[in-house]
Amino acid sequence: MKKSFKHKLLPFAVMSTLAIGSLTGCAAVEDKVGAEKGSAEQAVTNNQSITHAEAVAKIKEENPEIKNVIFLIGDGMGQPYMTAHRYMKDNPKTPEIELTSFDKHFLGVQTTHSEDEKENITDSAAAATAMSGGKKTYNNAIAVDHNHTPIKTVLEQAKENGMSTGLVSTSEITHATPASFGAHDESRKNMDEIADDYYDEKVNDEHKVDVLLGGGKLNFVRDDRDLTKEFKKDGYNYVTNMKELNKNKNEQVLGLFADEGLDKAIDRNKETPSLEQMTNSALKQLSKNDDGFFLMVEGSQIDWAGHDNDIVAAMSEMEDFEKAFNSAVEFAKKDKHTLVVTTADHSTGGFSLGANDEKGEGIYNWLTDPIKAAKKTPDYMAKKIVEGADVEKTLRENIKLELKPEEIAAVKEAAKTGDELKIDDAIEDIFNKRSYTGWTTSGHTGEEVGVYGYGPGKEMFSGFMDNTEQAENIFYILENMQGKDKDKDEKDED
Amino acid sequence: MKKSFKHKLLPFAVMSTLAIGSLTGCAAVEDKVGAEKGSAEQAVTNNQSITHAEAVAKIKEENPEIKNVIFLIGDGMGQPYMTAHRYMKDNPKTPEIELTSFDKHFLGVQTTHSEDEKENITDSAAAATAMSGGKKTYNNAIAVDHNHTPIKTVLEQAKENGMSTGLVSTSEITHATPASFGAHDESRKNMDEIADDYYDEKVNDEHKVDVLLGGGKLNFVRDDRDLTKEFKKDGYNYVTNMKELNKNKNEQVLGLFADEGLDKAIDRNKETPSLEQMTNSALKQLSKNDDGFFLMVEGSQIDWAGHDNDIVAAMSEMEDFEKAFNSAVEFAKKDKHTLVVTTADHSTGGFSLGANDEKGEGIYNWLTDPIKAAKKTPDYMAKKIVEGADVEKTLRENIKLELKPEEIAAVKEAAKTGDELKIDDAIEDIFNKRSYTGWTTSGHTGEEVGVYGYGPGKEMFSGFMDNTEQAENIFYILENMQGKDKDKDEKDED
Repeated sequence: MKKSFKHKLLPFAVMSTLAIGSLTGCAAVEDKVGAEKGSAEQAVTNNQSITHAEAVAKIKEENPEIKNVIFLIGDGMGQPYMTAHRYMKDNPKTPEIELTSFDKHFLGVQTTHSEDEKENITDSAAAATAMSGGKKTYNNAIAVDHNHTPIKTVLEQAKENGMSTGLVSTSEITHATPASFGAHDESRKNMDEIADDYYDEKVNDEHKVDVLLGGGKLNFVRDDRDLTKEFKKDGYNYVTNMKELNKNKNEQVLGLFADEGLDKAIDRNKETPSLEQMTNSALKQLSKNDDGFFLMVEGSQIDWAGHDNDIVAAMSEMEDFEKAFNSAVEFAKKDKHTLVVTTADHSTGGFSLGANDEKGEGIYNWLTDPIKAAKKTPDYMAKKIVEGADVEKTLRENIKLELKPEEIAAVKEAAKTGDELKIDDAIEDIFNKRSYTGWTTSGHTGEEVGVYGYGPGKEMFSGFMDNTEQAENIFYILENMQGKDKDKDEKDED
Repeated sequence: MKKSFKHKLLPFAVMSTLAIGSLTGCAAVEDKVGAEKGSAEQAVTNNQSITHAEAVAKIKEENPEIKNVIFLIGDGMGQPYMTAHRYMKDNPKTPEIELTSFDKHFLGVQTTHSEDEKENITDSAAAATAMSGGKKTYNNAIAVDHNHTPIKTVLEQAKENGMSTGLVSTSEITHATPASFGAHDESRKNMDEIADDYYDEKVNDEHKVDVLLGGGKLNFVRDDRDLTKEFKKDGYNYVTNMKELNKNKNEQVLGLFADEGLDKAIDRNKETPSLEQMTNSALKQLSKNDDGFFLMVEGSQIDWAGHDNDIVAAMSEMEDFEKAFNSAVEFAKKDKHTLVVTTADHSTGGFSLGANDEKGEGIYNWLTDPIKAAKKTPDYMAKKIVEGADVEKTLRENIKLELKPEEIAAVKEAAKTGDELKIDDAIEDIFNKRSYTGWTTSGHTGEEVGVYGYGPGKEMFSGFMDNTEQAENIFYILENMQGKDKDKDEKDED
C-alpha cells in the first residue's frame, strides 16, 4: 500500500450544484464481467464456484430481478462482537451455542483499510465512502476522493433510477456513515453542512433522501437555518418521537429523535424508537414506490460503545442491530425481490472475549452474567451520579450483582473528582473485569469484518472481498438487475 | 451452552489395546445428508447454494474423487493474525494491499468453543479433538471424551483405509494439536505417554503414523524408554537435522529436530528444517502410497508467540506457516485429487492491529517497519543477555532501528533482575509500542477463525461452520470419496 498520495487540497465546490458525473467504478466492474465470464463458466462446470469473483460473475450471468436493496452497517461490529453477541444469546439449557441471525446468513469477510496518507486503519467516513461509492479515500472524507471531488453514491444512483431512498441510524443522521451515502464533504466534522446537503443536493430536481430517521436535531434546527421547516415546506413530514413516527403516512419523512445521538438501546425511553422500529417505519414508506428502494440502516453506537470500552453498551447495541437486521430479512422473505446485505465498517476497541485477570493470568472464559446484570449503561449511571445521585444507590439500582466493597469504593473515589468520564470508566471496569472482556484501544482496529446477507444476488457478497466491492456490486445491481421486470412490463404494454 | 457435564472420571484404559469403535459422528453426518438433500436440490435450482450445509450436501451429491487430505492448523491463528500477515507482506509501491495465499483461498469461518465445565474458551487440545474426532470435549483432552473414552480420529480412519499418515509440527510432535490426531490421553500434559501412543497404538497391526516430523526429542528418548530405537527396529528412519531429512528415502520416518519445540523460524539455524521443508519432505514420502494419505501440519508457535504477546515471533511463524500452506496447495494443484484445508484452533493473546499510545489515545495505525527491523525474536535476545551478552550490543545487533535511550534503559533495568522473562517482556515492549500492537491476555480468546482451502470438496468447508464439522467432513470424505477410483479400477480388473 502506497501512502504518498498527492492529494491536492482543492477548494471544496458547493455541493448543491453538484453535477453527478459518470458512474464511479462501473467501467471497472464491466471490464471485470468480461474477464470473469470465462472463469465463471469453467467454475460452474466443475462446481467450484465459490470464490468471491466467481460468485459475482455467476450472479451477473443469472441476472436475477432485484427490486429493493437494504444495506445495514453495524458500525465497529468486528468479529469479536459477533461472537460475544452469540455467547450473550446462548441458551444455557442446551449443550450447543445457538446461532445468531447473522451467523445463519454468513456470506464472507471484507477488508476495511482506507487509503490515507497518515493512517493505515480506517475511520467510519472512509469505510462508508468505500461501501457507498466504491472508492478508497482518506480518513475523514464523506463521499469525496483525495482531491475532494465528490464520489457518486449508490443512494444517488438509486434516486436517479426513480427509486425511493432512506437513511436510518442511531447516531446523528448526519454522522459519518449515513452522511457518506447521502452527502459529500471534505470532513465528517461538518455535520451542519452535511444536513444542508440532504436538503440542497438534488437528483433529477428531487431531494435525494426520502426517509431520514435518526438523531441530530441540532444539526437541522440552527440559528442560521431551520432545515426541518424547509423539509416540511417541501412536503416532508417531520416527527420527533415514537408516537408521531407511528402516525406517519407520508412517503417523505424526516425523523429526529434526539439532539445528538439516540440513547443506547438499554437506556432508551419509550418515546424514542428502536433501530428495528425505525427500520420498519422506513420500509413501510419506501415500499410504496413500485420502482423499488434503497435503504441504508446503521447500528451506529456499537462503535461508540467500543470506543468507550463499554461492554454493556456494546451488547445492548448488538441486540438493537440484530433486531433491525431481522426486520429487513423478514421484509425480504415476503417480498422475494429484496436483497439484504449486512456488514461492518471496521472493528473498534480491540475487543476480545477473554482477558488477563488482575494477576496477569490469561483467563479462558468470557462471562455473560455480569453483563446481563446491568439494567442501564455505565454512561447512564455516571450521568446520574454527576447530577447528584448517590453512588451506592445508583449502582445497586442498575446493577443486579452482589457488588464488592472495592468496586463501590472505586466508583466513589472517581465520583469525588466530579469527572463523568472517570466515573464512567470506574463503572465499566466492574463489567470488563467480571466478564473478562479485553480492550486494547479507544480507537479502531484493522481486521476484516463479516458480511451477511439474504435474498437474490446475495452470493455477490460472499467469500473474501474488499469493502469497495460492496458499492461496485450495488452499482451493478442498480444498473442491470433493478427494475428489470418493470422494463419488461412496460415493453409488454407497448 | 450447558456447563454441568457429568463427566465421571473413569480410569484411563491402556490405549495400545484400543478397540476402535464405530465411526464417531458419521451416523449424524448421514442423517444430515438425507435431511439436506431436499434443500440442496432446491438450492442448486435457484442457485443460492452457498450456506455451509448446502455446500456440504452439494459436494456429497457430486461425490468427487479425493485421494489425499492435507489438513493444516495455524495454532492460535485468529483473524488479526491473517490481517497482520497481509500488512507485513504488502508491497509499499502499489496502492492496494496485496492478498496473502490464505486470502486467495478463503472459504469461511468456524466457531472454536469447547465443552468444558469451567471454561467457555477452548484450549488447543479440545479444539484439535473437535477437528480430529468431531466431538466437543473438555479443555486438556487429547482425543478423549468427557468420560475419558477415546474418540476415533480422522488419522486413524485414514490408516484403517490403508492410506499413509503423517503429523508435522514446529512444537513437540507430542504437543496438544498433533497428539489429538494420533494419540488419546486424558491430559495434554502427558507428552511421554502420547509419544508411547504413537508407537504402541496400532491400526490393523500397523503403526498408525508413518511420518512424524517436529520437535520433542525428550519425550521419545527417556530413561524408561527410547522410542527412537523402537521405531528404528520397526523399520522407521530416525533423523534429527535437515541434512538427514533431505537424505531420507524411507516411507516411514521419525524426525525430531529439537529437544522440545523448534526455534521460531526467524531464530532457526540451517540444520533445523522450516515447516515448509518438513511438509515437502512428508509429502514426498506419503505420496508414494497409491492408496492416498492424510497429513496434518501444524504451525504450532503462532500460538506460542501470541501467549508471549510477541509480535516479532508471531509474524515470523505466520510466514513459516504460509509457506507450508503454499507447498500443500502446489502439491494439490499438480495432483488434482488432493484436498487442502487450513484453519486455526482459536485466536491467542487478544491481538489487535492498532492500540492505545502511551497517552491512552487510540492510534489508527499498525506499523510493520518496527517488526521488520527485528532480526531475531525477543526470546532469542533475552536468552543471550541472560547468558551474559551486553544488553546494548545485543539489541543493536538484532534490531535495525534507531533505539531510543529509554528503550535501552528499560531492557537494562530488566537485565539487572537476571529474569529472562522480564528481559523478554522489555524487548517485546519496544516492538509492541512502536507498531501499535495491542494484546489483552496471555491466554486464548473466543472469536471465530478463518477456514481456507483448495482442491476437490473444498466447498464442504465453506460458509459458517463449527469446528467439529471439520472432522465430520473428513470422515465423510474418507468413507465415501477417498479411494473411489481405486475401487472402480479393482472392479474393472475382476
